Amino acid sequence: MKHRFNILIFTFLTFLGINAQQITSPDGNSVLEFDLNTKGTPTYKLTYKNKAVIKASKLGFIFKDDENLESGFTILGSQTDSFDDIWKPVWGEESEIRNHYNELLLHLKQEASQRLMDIRFRMYDEGVGFRYEFPEQPHLGHFVIEDEQTQFAMAGDHTAFWIPGDYDTQEYDYTESRLSEIRGLMDKSITENLSQKSFSSTGVQTSLMLKTDAGLYINIHEAALIDYSVMHLELDDKHMVFNAWLTPDSQGNRPYMVAPANTPWRTVMVSDDARDILASRMTYNLNAPCEIEDTSWIKPVKYVGVWWEMITGMSSWAYTNDFKAVKLGVTDYSQAKPNGTHAANNKHVKELIDFAALHGFDGVLVEGWNVGWEDWFGHSKDYVFDFVTPYPDFDVDEIQNYAKSKGVEMIMHHETSSSVRNYERHLDGAYKFMKDHGYHAVKSGYVGDILPRGENHYSQWMVNHYQYAIEKAAEYEIMVNAHEAVRPTGIARTYPNLIGNESARGTEYQAFGGSKPNHVTVLPFTRLIGGPMDYTPGIFEMDVSKLNPNNNSHVNSTIANQLALYVTMYSPLQMAADLPENYNRFLDAFQFIKDVAVDWDKSVYLEAEPGSYITIARKAKGTNNWFVGNVNGKAGRISNISFDFLEKGKKYIATIYADAKDADYKTNPQAYTIKKIKVTSKSKLKQNSVEGGGYAISIMEE
Amino acid sequence: MKHRFNILIFTFLTFLGINAQQITSPDGNSVLEFDLNTKGTPTYKLTYKNKAVIKASKLGFIFKDDENLESGFTILGSQTDSFDDIWKPVWGEESEIRNHYNELLLHLKQEASQRLMDIRFRMYDEGVGFRYEFPEQPHLGHFVIEDEQTQFAMAGDHTAFWIPGDYDTQEYDYTESRLSEIRGLMDKSITENLSQKSFSSTGVQTSLMLKTDAGLYINIHEAALIDYSVMHLELDDKHMVFNAWLTPDSQGNRPYMVAPANTPWRTVMVSDDARDILASRMTYNLNAPCEIEDTSWIKPVKYVGVWWEMITGMSSWAYTNDFKAVKLGVTDYSQAKPNGTHAANNKHVKELIDFAALHGFDGVLVEGWNVGWEDWFGHSKDYVFDFVTPYPDFDVDEIQNYAKSKGVEMIMHHETSSSVRNYERHLDGAYKFMKDHGYHAVKSGYVGDILPRGENHYSQWMVNHYQYAIEKAAEYEIMVNAHEAVRPTGIARTYPNLIGNESARGTEYQAFGGSKPNHVTVLPFTRLIGGPMDYTPGIFEMDVSKLNPNNNSHVNSTIANQLALYVTMYSPLQMAADLPENYNRFLDAFQFIKDVAVDWDKSVYLEAEPGSYITIARKAKGTNNWFVGNVNGKAGRISNISFDFLEKGKKYIATIYADAKDADYKTNPQAYTIKKIKVTSKSKLKQNSVEGGGYAISIMEE
Repeated sequence: MKHRFNILIFTFLTFLGINAQQITSPDGNSVLEFDLNTKGTPTYKLTYKNKAVIKASKLGFIFKDDENLESGFTILGSQTDSFDDIWKPVWGEESEIRNHYNELLLHLKQEASQRLMDIRFRMYDEGVGFRYEFPEQPHLGHFVIEDEQTQFAMAGDHTAFWIPGDYDTQEYDYTESRLSEIRGLMDKSITENLSQKSFSSTGVQTSLMLKTDAGLYINIHEAALIDYSVMHLELDDKHMVFNAWLTPDSQGNRPYMVAPANTPWRTVMVSDDARDILASRMTYNLNAPCEIEDTSWIKPVKYVGVWWEMITGMSSWAYTNDFKAVKLGVTDYSQAKPNGTHAANNKHVKELIDFAALHGFDGVLVEGWNVGWEDWFGHSKDYVFDFVTPYPDFDVDEIQNYAKSKGVEMIMHHETSSSVRNYERHLDGAYKFMKDHGYHAVKSGYVGDILPRGENHYSQWMVNHYQYAIEKAAEYEIMVNAHEAVRPTGIARTYPNLIGNESARGTEYQAFGGSKPNHVTVLPFTRLIGGPMDYTPGIFEMDVSKLNPNNNSHVNSTIANQLALYVTMYSPLQMAADLPENYNRFLDAFQFIKDVAVDWDKSVYLEAEPGSYITIARKAKGTNNWFVGNVNGKAGRISNISFDFLEKGKKYIATIYADAKDADYKTNPQAYTIKKIKVTSKSKLKQNSVEGGGYAISIMEE
Repeated sequence: MKHRFNILIFTFLTFLGINAQQITSPDGNSVLEFDLNTKGTPTYKLTYKNKAVIKASKLGFIFKDDENLESGFTILGSQTDSFDDIWKPVWGEESEIRNHYNELLLHLKQEASQRLMDIRFRMYDEGVGFRYEFPEQPHLGHFVIEDEQTQFAMAGDHTAFWIPGDYDTQEYDYTESRLSEIRGLMDKSITENLSQKSFSSTGVQTSLMLKTDAGLYINIHEAALIDYSVMHLELDDKHMVFNAWLTPDSQGNRPYMVAPANTPWRTVMVSDDARDILASRMTYNLNAPCEIEDTSWIKPVKYVGVWWEMITGMSSWAYTNDFKAVKLGVTDYSQAKPNGTHAANNKHVKELIDFAALHGFDGVLVEGWNVGWEDWFGHSKDYVFDFVTPYPDFDVDEIQNYAKSKGVEMIMHHETSSSVRNYERHLDGAYKFMKDHGYHAVKSGYVGDILPRGENHYSQWMVNHYQYAIEKAAEYEIMVNAHEAVRPTGIARTYPNLIGNESARGTEYQAFGGSKPNHVTVLPFTRLIGGPMDYTPGIFEMDVSKLNPNNNSHVNSTIANQLALYVTMYSPLQMAADLPENYNRFLDAFQFIKDVAVDWDKSVYLEAEPGSYITIARKAKGTNNWFVGNVNGKAGRISNISFDFLEKGKKYIATIYADAKDADYKTNPQAYTIKKIKVTSKSKLKQNSVEGGGYAISIMEE
């Protein structure tokens, strides 16, 4: 089903200036108007149901050592187009995605420089994506962008769910505030990280979620970030205008370009129903179709591992405490005294494999299996890991054979320590090692400051690297779950072997002092817009000191909330992050994690309000089973849902895992109830969730 | 023949301070004294035949963000050692090299920090090498050097042959001046280069050649530069003290170290006979033995190519003038209009193969064969070359088969344009492509500013890269000739597949305005101390405008001088750089280039004075043939040589290629004479050479 119409869709030219051009969304709710101002600067504005979403905003570039592309433009011509197609993702929240938009393409010329620049707008029902295109031309070849001048002029002092703009980390708690309050709250919002660099007291990151007083939900992000710098937003809080702020490289430059070239898409989603933001596939649709021919090796994964015991400080990545510094190939581990806390040892990993096999998990992830962890961060160390040499107590072949005999897959771990040249040098060898030993997925990490030194995590140089690692992994039929890498922008459509990213404040922070109890009601509106997150939910023991007496952190969540995350935090890669002994204490609740799917035919967004609550129902791929998740961020609330998403006439058994009446995310997080009821498409449910709580439902055909 | 004595060699303790220790060279001429000064700072001094060479000079380090290692040391202990061994280089100026030294190893401890630092001195007859060693220890792991404090205190205002200190280029003409004159001459000595960064008005590069008024020849350089920054020398011209000045990285830092670690060796050669400097193998001896097990694939090469016609501007690297910019994989060359000057085309390359085959050359080097040359420098372009895609007019297989049928080897060319990440990403593929197509040697290039941007050609990051490329090439049995890379420091002993480097002002500058006529009488004392140079001699047409009417450069050399370079500029890789048509005009002189060897059993240094003249005789490996070269830098001079290097009792025919009486490097450079005489070991020769001239002799057994 693919339609393309080369027709002029809207011609309200009588209402517009001589240069102005309009398109609307397919449903007619949103209108985008392009114009040139009196200086010949391109501008655009966006309305939704006649309400201003983006007021007149400038478009253009400041170039380094070259004439700017910001004014003096004329319109050489324009084209409109309409597109309607359905494509099937390899994995996802639904098995078919509709890509339906109206397009306006402007051909601009800067007369003084004779340079050409196109701007392409695509209008979806849920918003607009636009990008700059630099065609091949005689007067523009190589250029360095000093500043992208794209503006997003807000129509008021909206409420925003924001994290501080930063060149090196996205791992911040969200602050909910008026735009005018950002400046005053910035300092407090910047919490410590192993690598971080903020740039402005009004700088925030995308995807940025906003709500207007008129009840519009607006989301600003980008799509298809390829070989370009990450866009942050800097607020001019006098005029409530966000200016694009690209992440610079070590020399202070923004992307180095060679025409023909495109920027990523800048996206503005808008609706008066927050559920539409969650349901949107615009970000994926703006990415190129799948580049991988045979995708049969890409498979969603539910896994367990040693990660949580390390993060809490109960176990260690390192094998020994003997060394002041490690020199790979020189340091002799065979003589080192084991520190007794090394989790990645044969015995313990086999226990985890047994647990995974017993409960039907697909994989086991083991960090700290390879030599080098004794001095792995904070030293700007170039040759930090080789990705192929195991510690003396981890036998790759033995573990691999054992896992295979149990029907479980081992998941590889590549911490780069941000020594990126070192990783690229070892990448072929590391991937080949994986293939040779039966690993099909890797969790990679970029902790600490980048090497090449002076580079930022989100500069063009690094964006290029993350992409390189993904594409090379595809050659080896390896799935990638990159942590501390750039936040996703829908690239998984093109490279579906990118099955996960961290790129936000994940569950680990629950062991580092705790995240806000409503954190998970924000993430689907922000971080998840670009792609799935390896959030690593499933913590059942909220008192971290039970694992490590020296760690007094508390997990700000109820068990029911943790269960709901497997539905609300969509990912084809889901971890059951807690320790087997904690699951063994709550096997009835654990049953939900065992049952829940990781790939879906269909998703229905039942309730949503950013920062407050999210309720989603999803149909497990290739089955008639449904799973519902509700997370509740603020005060206790009654969720009201209808089961009308179920197939009419069919009978189902619903098992509801919910907060107990006396549940409290701080003082009584393990209080949950489980009840089974019969439901049909006509059933309805009123269910209470506490603050930081929620509920999860598995619905099986009777 | 390997001897090791663990004895104390010299014990003149009565003459020394309580901490002072001495060693002498095996021949007893040089004495090295180590001491701690009153602040506990290590110092050393060096004498030669009782004359001061290095006056008391400090040793130590300034660390970044850490306590310095510069004072407060005590001596924990010391060891002396003596070593005498002979090893066989894979290629070289002689087939056997003696490694004979006395060693003094100091174990130092900085009491306040409890840190350990060793200093190891090795005394050879021709000088001393010393290095810092940081053993594995509890109080020193990772450290960043801000400044290496090594001093070389001169005993007077010597005459120096110097080029400006620079982080990015070594391609300067030498200036001969007193040390006190360096500051005043610096500006004039800095000529333009595509990438350059000077750091001080008294900064100079190593290897630095000096001559004292007392007639001592002193050379300062380094050996075994591995994973460390290049050492420059900055002169304190009040006190005539050279201070080590390490090349910083993009962040201004000097090397990042992990103990256990060593610095490179700092070398000071000294003699009252300049020939001893040329004959020294100290730099190789201070490097580690060969790391390549099977070296049978490493073979010296004499070659021709398209290089000179490109350098002069007669031909082009680029295939077309159509493109403002090239985007590999996007730009369509099949539709491009050829510019008509592209040298690397099938027809022309076959002509060169024919020429090589006719005259017995081993190889043909072709630059500009691969796509991307239209915008290859000056744009900070990341993806600049892919190293595997030929231009439409260059058929890799066809050329390869043709060359093979003629018994000639093609030599690969990899210009990186200093986009180093791009090169490393393609390295395996590029080397594999070479193997698949029968190439066994590559000329690589690093023109322009380095990417990662901000890095310098001679920083630790880049030194690490050049080494990586060499070691990876060895895995593929590929020989490397790296241009614009770091100047060599004897590493070819360890990796003899490094068969050449440029790393100095080569013949190309004769097409860029000309080099000084005595340039080649300096290079063997400076650039060649660390290893061979791909100088590309053999220019017969000195008027460059004959090749390209728009280029009025003149080659400041006579034809006889050009011939002599094949002997005086030792290299296992020698090009006959001029065009076949120019050789065809002077086939009698060309005969010497055809005859001369590129690998030697023995070398005899007959006459030498830096900046003035060099005369060397070498015995071709595995034959009884000898070749003599004389280059003369300044005014006309009579060279007086004896043939006593010849085997006694044997008769030889010597063919002497000399400057004609009326030869003049500017006005009459092509005036030469050729005569044949009979010689024995008792023969002597008086031969005139003009300024910028010289002579060459081939001596064949009768």
